[in-house]
Amino acid sequence: MIQPPKDGTIHNGFIETPKNQRQPSELAHRISTAELLGNVGAEVTLKGWLHHVRSLANVSFVILRDRDGLAQVVVDDPALMAEIGTWHKESVVQVVGKATANKVAPNGVEVHSANISVIAPSVEQPPVEMQRPELKETLPMLLDLAPLSLRHPKRRAPFEISSSALEGFRNVLLSNGFTEITTPKIVQSATESGANVFKIKYFDKEAYLAQSPQFYKQTMVGVFERVFEVAPVFRAEPSDTVRHIAEYVSLDCEIGFIADHTDVMRVVETVIGSMIDSIRDRSAKAVELLGIQLPEIKGNFPELKFWEAQEMIERATGRSTVGEPDLSPDDERFLGAWALKEHGSDFVFVVGYPTVKRPFYTHQMPGHEGFTNSFDVLFKGQELITGGQRLHLYADYVEAIERRGEDISTYESYLQAFKYGMPPHGGFAIGLERFVGGIAGTKNIRESTLFPRDLNRLRP
Amino acid sequence: MIQPPKDGTIHNGFIETPKNQRQPSELAHRISTAELLGNVGAEVTLKGWLHHVRSLANVSFVILRDRDGLAQVVVDDPALMAEIGTWHKESVVQVVGKATANKVAPNGVEVHSANISVIAPSVEQPPVEMQRPELKETLPMLLDLAPLSLRHPKRRAPFEISSSALEGFRNVLLSNGFTEITTPKIVQSATESGANVFKIKYFDKEAYLAQSPQFYKQTMVGVFERVFEVAPVFRAEPSDTVRHIAEYVSLDCEIGFIADHTDVMRVVETVIGSMIDSIRDRSAKAVELLGIQLPEIKGNFPELKFWEAQEMIERATGRSTVGEPDLSPDDERFLGAWALKEHGSDFVFVVGYPTVKRPFYTHQMPGHEGFTNSFDVLFKGQELITGGQRLHLYADYVEAIERRGEDISTYESYLQAFKYGMPPHGGFAIGLERFVGGIAGTKNIRESTLFPRDLNRLRP
Repeated sequence: MIQPPKDGTIHNGFIETPKNQRQPSELAHRISTAELLGNVGAEVTLKGWLHHVRSLANVSFVILRDRDGLAQVVVDDPALMAEIGTWHKESVVQVVGKATANKVAPNGVEVHSANISVIAPSVEQPPVEMQRPELKETLPMLLDLAPLSLRHPKRRAPFEISSSALEGFRNVLLSNGFTEITTPKIVQSATESGANVFKIKYFDKEAYLAQSPQFYKQTMVGVFERVFEVAPVFRAEPSDTVRHIAEYVSLDCEIGFIADHTDVMRVVETVIGSMIDSIRDRSAKAVELLGIQLPEIKGNFPELKFWEAQEMIERATGRSTVGEPDLSPDDERFLGAWALKEHGSDFVFVVGYPTVKRPFYTHQMPGHEGFTNSFDVLFKGQELITGGQRLHLYADYVEAIERRGEDISTYESYLQAFKYGMPPHGGFAIGLERFVGGIAGTKNIRESTLFPRDLNRLRP
Repeated sequence: MIQPPKDGTIHNGFIETPKNQRQPSELAHRISTAELLGNVGAEVTLKGWLHHVRSLANVSFVILRDRDGLAQVVVDDPALMAEIGTWHKESVVQVVGKATANKVAPNGVEVHSANISVIAPSVEQPPVEMQRPELKETLPMLLDLAPLSLRHPKRRAPFEISSSALEGFRNVLLSNGFTEITTPKIVQSATESGANVFKIKYFDKEAYLAQSPQFYKQTMVGVFERVFEVAPVFRAEPSDTVRHIAEYVSLDCEIGFIADHTDVMRVVETVIGSMIDSIRDRSAKAVELLGIQLPEIKGNFPELKFWEAQEMIERATGRSTVGEPDLSPDDERFLGAWALKEHGSDFVFVVGYPTVKRPFYTHQMPGHEGFTNSFDVLFKGQELITGGQRLHLYADYVEAIERRGEDISTYESYLQAFKYGMPPHGGFAIGLERFVGGIAGTKNIRESTLFPRDLNRLRP
């Protein structure tokens, strides 16, 4: 999908431009494990981590790990075998040897007549057995040891998927007239409500960490019509659940000149489709390693009105649901199962949430007083995306803010955007870690977050 | 450079997938001003902002602005002319009329027989005259009015360039084996030093806002070898200058298995080249509007050793420079002028900064005690990029930290990465707003920051 830069050629995994007069870099003097099969018969240099060593009487099988995967190296020199036996796992090593086809070796190739030397030693035996197909430690222990445990092929796979998902998100928007924006995370007042917000000492003032780029992305619709941002957001979430973290990456979109929220829903489908396509194209190995199946996007996502969903749940389960202002996690799981069973879809739109549960800038649903032109997307029965149409008329903002008993001067900067003409618009936000966790099939959002932050965790 | 998603076709500026059974969206029922010339002879619908109205006796010329630019609309119906005269500028309007070629109209096309209606009114006359080629207000006033002033074509142009620069940065890295990472901005301890750091109340603890993703990107070299991140960083910068803001976007890169810092420098050149190519390809209109010339990248950037630079400056200016631990802003301007004059380059590497001025994780320069394998890139005489080779051996970290009189337990999580084997590595960070400001030719970093944060500014 992406081209190398103009005048650039890719050489052994990194760029050298023809313009570049200097000696080829050290980066070019190795191949990756993925390039081994294409180099059968050649003397090759590999560099990577000492993943595992299996020693027999007359031969040692050394497994080297690099960014592309694993390679088997065969060592039969007794002195070298003895020396390797003294090295700690995870030492960074260089292997020079002959790439040799061998049907029983991993990927059909291994390195023979190898010389191995240490580039940077591991100073002790790692506390985690990296060669296991699955790590056995508890999640808190794996998180404490993240710099090590993330190196494990199955632990790192969700983050390969994350990188590809981000690429798919941006590419489809950039190719459709969106502009990427970067907006401040330090804000003067809490964005959506006073609750769950982190307070900062900002020079001699107080400030807050942004809970979302909502006001800024709306403002920028007035400038670019279609904008997106990928950035951290911060929620001082006081509950310790498998679904919540205090800092996550929000994929935000906002679109001007829509008819209503249904236009936004069409963009959601396109964006999610692009993210999944990008994962399929660029992270095939991670998908295979995790043994997961990517969601199939066939046509539109199934969709239910909020009140229809409640009626269906109440009918099916007997649980008193109709009239509740929001869906419970149980309700969401029910709807996820329904979408899969009835429509073969991992995604489902719930449309028209009650006004009381949506922020003040949410557009009302015409003809349905007390409900809004808003939606959630449930992914495998869990809330993944929140979106909808926003108010766009200045007078409507003034009324909505006053109805809440707030002073409009609090929102003065924000309201400029509407005072000076703003088209009908709407947007949505996707939680990256939830999306990746849903794709990767992990149970706890901390498994799809590199260095999670929560009530109890502030490091590494 | 970027393809639409599979099965997608672009229709009037937004995607409709063939899979999509729903009615085409409202988004498709308009063309943009850029599409006007291709629709000569057709009845078209435009939507945008009322940029300007020029009324003569029998005709009004209405200038409509949308995300792509401006279009002239000719109105000769007296009743409509009178009505338009009552509308405030910046009202959002819809124009339906016939696209008509006219050599003297802007872009050679205008809309005739037009009907115009208001979609969303501006509720008062804007305090800024948007139709001026340049806004005349002071920068503080323009910043206070950002939701409005950013709509001005010349004010928004740097942010079109910013979006393209980000795309160029990521694309060249993604196509060369880099993985995008997202790391926490709330951290337990100050990253590089205790100074200039914002403190947060984090539940019942204290925490800080990250000044850089340095430790995390190094850690992730152990996982993916080549990583990048685009994210905000926070500096409680107590000085109020045209070069500093308290929150900016850092484009971070880190690369494993390098020989030394010169490998990193080659990556810098490639990345900057890709960013400029992307601006040229995607933001041609913004470049033209600003009347700027993009830097030409011919071969490697010129480069000077730190001490050579000082000798040259002292020889040329008589200013006592040799032996100073850092370059002054004057020194940097001198070197920028030198690079342009001697090498025709807007960029210049200064290599080998003194150890005392670089963070403890910086690799020493072999054979030059007291100097490091580090560099800055000056862009038009101003520091833009800082980079270098890092220490990679655990023992070297322990020694460097103890030499500073600090306790290694403070760095325990970070040091795990080195304890368990880390290859020689290095990286760099580009300040997005400085880069864009340098490209756009703006004088104050607040002109290339959408909503700047500084000592005195916390909104909008």
